[in-house]
Formats: sequence, structure tokens, C-alpha cells
Amino acid sequence: MWVTNCHNGSGRPLDIRKRYSGVERPLFILILSNSDTAAIPGISGAGSTEDYIQYTPAADAEIVSNGKLKTIGVMPNAPSGAVTPAVLTRAGLNLSQSAHLLINSGLKIVPGVPYYDLRTKHGSDIRFAPAVPDAYSIQKAAKKLAACCDCDLAVIGETIPGGTTTALCVLRALGFTANVSSSFATNPIALKEKVVREAMRRASINPGNLRNDPMRAIELFGDPMMPCAVGLTEGFLRSGKEVILAGGTQMGAVAAALRALDVSTDLVIATTKYVFDDRAARFVKLVNALDVDAFSADPGFSKSSVDALQKYEQGEVKEGVGAGGAMTLAYIRGYSQEAYRREVEAVIKRL
Amino acid sequence: MWVTNCHNGSGRPLDIRKRYSGVERPLFILILSNSDTAAIPGISGAGSTEDYIQYTPAADAEIVSNGKLKTIGVMPNAPSGAVTPAVLTRAGLNLSQSAHLLINSGLKIVPGVPYYDLRTKHGSDIRFAPAVPDAYSIQKAAKKLAACCDCDLAVIGETIPGGTTTALCVLRALGFTANVSSSFATNPIALKEKVVREAMRRASINPGNLRNDPMRAIELFGDPMMPCAVGLTEGFLRSGKEVILAGGTQMGAVAAALRALDVSTDLVIATTKYVFDDRAARFVKLVNALDVDAFSADPGFSKSSVDALQKYEQGEVKEGVGAGGAMTLAYIRGYSQEAYRREVEAVIKRL
Repeated sequence: MWVTNCHNGSGRPLDIRKRYSGVERPLFILILSNSDTAAIPGISGAGSTEDYIQYTPAADAEIVSNGKLKTIGVMPNAPSGAVTPAVLTRAGLNLSQSAHLLINSGLKIVPGVPYYDLRTKHGSDIRFAPAVPDAYSIQKAAKKLAACCDCDLAVIGETIPGGTTTALCVLRALGFTANVSSSFATNPIALKEKVVREAMRRASINPGNLRNDPMRAIELFGDPMMPCAVGLTEGFLRSGKEVILAGGTQMGAVAAALRALDVSTDLVIATTKYVFDDRAARFVKLVNALDVDAFSADPGFSKSSVDALQKYEQGEVKEGVGAGGAMTLAYIRGYSQEAYRREVEAVIKRL
Repeated sequence: MWVTNCHNGSGRPLDIRKRYSGVERPLFILILSNSDTAAIPGISGAGSTEDYIQYTPAADAEIVSNGKLKTIGVMPNAPSGAVTPAVLTRAGLNLSQSAHLLINSGLKIVPGVPYYDLRTKHGSDIRFAPAVPDAYSIQKAAKKLAACCDCDLAVIGETIPGGTTTALCVLRALGFTANVSSSFATNPIALKEKVVREAMRRASINPGNLRNDPMRAIELFGDPMMPCAVGLTEGFLRSGKEVILAGGTQMGAVAAALRALDVSTDLVIATTKYVFDDRAARFVKLVNALDVDAFSADPGFSKSSVDALQKYEQGEVKEGVGAGGAMTLAYIRGYSQEAYRREVEAVIKRL
């Protein structure tokens, strides 16, 4: 088993392949967003240089949709040379033959492939202004959209640089002490904490103050990805569809908001083993506190000769673009770790 | 019966309410497009002045989605003062409580409400250049989108100024002698014929030459709405969903393309009585030639004291924004003509 159920909030043992054996029409949804928080120097490794960070969601979208770049001129790889997780996602969707839907929830730079456009602005720098003034209308529009989507399982991923810092701030406002992950091998925790402190001081909010008002926490401290993921999840669950939140600590913040909104259904987060096993992020502590199931997907990159994949084993990138969720889809469809790794390598060759 | 089945290609009698009595999740889809053909002076009445014609699809989208304008500054009414058919559509969706999805298939000016963006360019002036170079990729993307839409009946409408002229040219290339409708009370037929002649001369195509290659006809002479409507219809029919093409002669051109693509399923066009009864457009002749069902919806505006609706009775506007299809949805749900007319008047008051 290369995708394992490492925590089960409800206490029941869980066979992932069995649980999803009835799935016929999975839909992979990728939320694309930008924020000015990502422009804080040193905060994000989601781009080869800081100049290119804001291009990353659009570039990821083109790779997921198209298998290669179309209009964006720069590969969204990490400064270390680690390949973008969009490649991992594309491989999972290829194998599982899943349909996908891209959602523009506040992009500054748009991809050249089709997407659903929520017509909203990118997020502000949380140190200086409310992050997402449109949080409520994004949530509402996403809920409506979910009601129109034909699927029995929605896997929801994201690509927004700087997203772990906004996740940290939302988690703090909701009263969680958990830490978050980083696309850098060395997590710039001190910088993130400083940004969070400044944002909370600006808004005169102390940790835990907003534990009963998660949409306000997102409005003040989050990013435009979050209300979209919250609304989609609410919409899908309401219409009896299953949801997997595909991501690490950012989806932890989304799950925390959903819990605070009284969504009591079993929630599931699928992530990579790189986030799951990351001591700095304390991901397991967070999912325990949230009482959610978490799946950990191991792509087996230690056996790959491709340097851009080996970097993941050294702690670079770790997760993003819903990679862990896309791997889970391939796993559910019966593919082995080796078949998956080979598909990732094939996607890289075609880039 | 204020919505009647006036032609039945298959020869069977048809009770519209009965035929659609099993519909539980109708989805109204509105395709939004622009083209440079619309900028030919005198060709389109879809805007209060020629300067504002290209704003009409975005304004219509805001009214359908929002009940009023949001970011567009000018009401998309006709020069005569007749109200935009977006109002008729909104009323039908309000009563029938139908979900809706907007699709941007080549807009020059975008609305401030959410839509699915096919990421394609507006149509060219057919006199000077191929109309829709991306026709095939639009068709393909629309087919994919249809596969992700949850509904049992898709009602597909459009808002693209100048669309009857491109419809005329596509019909001619496919070998039909039929004429088309106009948003003006007096149809500028001579001008349309002149544009069509120039376009066909430019491409060295004679009437009927493309009867076996409808996508090429759309590529050369159509507009970006058409490949989207074609692809959506193919996608929905393939997944066992019912489709109503909501419009007049423009949807006639779409149906003609579908027939030429060997789509042999029963096709249905729902339009207003203003198009259906329009002698200049010879709509009935076209639907007979295409062997499609046609529904004619009479909103009962002769009984309205609102001048902007009375204009419809005088031959202004006639149809657009899928109005006839939205009326059909209200009719299927059991609403009377009077209830519908009152809802239209209520929508106008709230504008």
C-alpha cells in the first residue's frame, strides 16, 4: 500500500481502495489563486525565483490541463530544481482517467486553458489589509458551482503561493497551535510567525478569538482559495457527494474552517508522505485535533533516477496542486507505486 | 398552452409538459460571445447604440445571474427601448428555480459575475478573415465541460450581437436557403446578404460547398458561440441528457451543424413566438428542413402595460439570451402565461 490511512478520526479501520471502490465519476478540482502575501521575500518557494512566484498557479494549471506549458513562459519549479507538483498531479489524473475542473479564485495571472472564473480579486498582504473582502460571496458562488458538478467524488486541490502562511494565520485565529508546512526544505517558520503576528495585531485579533467565526478569519487572514474550498465542500457534501481535500496544512486550515462551520461529516485530507512525515509541520497533530481522516501517499521517488524528483525525498516542495489527492485517485484505480512513478517520469519527459 | 410544439420532425404528437415531467435538475446554460461582425454598421440591434453593442453579452450575463447590472454601466436594451431578453430569461429561471451556468466563449468585454471561461478569442469579421480559428478546440472543450455538468436537461441559450448574420452564412455554406431573424423590427436582410456574399467570396466557397464539413463552415463563417453550442450538445447527448437549443435562427444554424455532424437524435429548438411567427425569418421552413422539433413560447406581452415589453409585440428584439428556452422551463414547471408575464414585470421593476 503506497497510499495509507494514517489517521482515522472516527476510530474505524479503513481500507482506502475498498472505501472508494464504488466511485465511478471522480472529479479533480484545482483552485487557482494568488495573493500579495506570497510576495513577502523568503516566504514561498513555489517558483524558480521570486519574480516568477505569481506565475506558478497559471503554469500549474496549464500542466495539469495540457501536460505542458501553453502560454506561460516559465516552468513553475522550485529554486532547488525540484519539479512542480503539477507533474505529480497530471500523472495521477492520467492513470485514473479522472475529469478535472480548474477554478480561478483570485488569480493575478491567468492560464491559457479553460477554467471556471469566480470573478474575484487576488488576496491582499495580510499584514496590511483584510485578506479576502469577498470571502462570503466566493463561498456562496462555490457552493452553487458544486451543485452543478456531475461527480460522485470530488477531490479538491489548490495552487496558491504563500498559502501556508495564510493557513497558519487562519489556524491561529481559530485557536489551533499547529504549525504549517513549507515548499522549502528548511521551513521559514520565524518569518511566517512574524507575518502572522503583524496581521493579527493589525486586525486586533488574538489567537482563538475567531473560533466561532471561521469565515471572518478567512476574510481577515486567509486567501481566496479558502472560501472556494469551503463552499465547494459544503455544496458537494450537501448533495451527497464524497469529498477529499487534497493538500497538506492548507487543507488543514480549510478543514478547521469547515469544522467551525459545524460541518460534522467525516472529512478526509489526502496528502503526500512528505507533508505527513514533516516534523516541523506537525500535520498529524493538526488532523488529530480536527478529528479528520488523513491519507498519506508515497510516490516512491527514492527509487527514481530523476533529480527533480529526488529533491522531494530531500524535503523540497513536499505537496501542492492536489498531488496527494491525484495519487490517491491512481491508487484507488488499482495502480501500483511503480506504475505511478513511471507515469510521473513520462510526464516530465513530455513537458 | 402558452408554449406549444409547433413542429414535430418525427411525426409524433407531443405534450411538452408531459415530455419533460421527469426532469428534476434542469440546467440553463448561457453562451456569451462577441464578434467583429457585430460592429458592421446597421447589422445588429442588440444594444441601445452601436457604441454599446459589444457590452450586451456581459450586461445580459449580469442580469441573468444577478437580476441587475453589476459592473457594466449600460442597459443592453434595443434602440427602440425594448427591454433586453435577459429579463425574460431571468424571469423564467426565477419561476422554474433552475440552476444556470454562464460560458465565456470569446468575449471582448467580460461580466462581473462568475462564468466558465473557454479562454478563446472573439470572432472575426467574416468579410475579412476566418471567423473562429479555434472552432475545433472550442468544440472539444465544450464537450468535456458537458461531461462534468450535473443535470438531466440542458437548455442552451446564447447572447452574441450580430449572431444572425453569421448564422445565415453558416446555413448558406451548409446548403440551406433559409433566411434568418433580426433584433430589428425591420430585418436588414439586404445588408446581411451582402456581408454573406463578401465572406463567401473571400473564402472561395459557394452555397452548399461545406455541407459535409460543418465545423469548417463555423471556422470560416460562424462565431465562437456555435462550436461551443455544438460541443455542449454532443457532450450532453452522449451522456444521456436531454438538450433544448434555446434560440431562433442562430440555434437553427447550430442544429444544422449538428445534423451535418451526424447527430441523429431528436433535436429540439425552443424559441419565442416572435421568431416562430416571423415571416421574414422563415423559421418554420428551416426547422422543417432540419427535421427538428420546435417549441414556440408566447409570453403574453400584448396584455402588458409595460412599453418595453409591448415593443416585442411590434417585432422588436424577438428573442435572445435563451428567452424561449427559459419560458419553456417555467411552462414545464406548471406556471401560467400570466404568472410568467407578472414575473417579467417584477424583474424589470427590480432592475
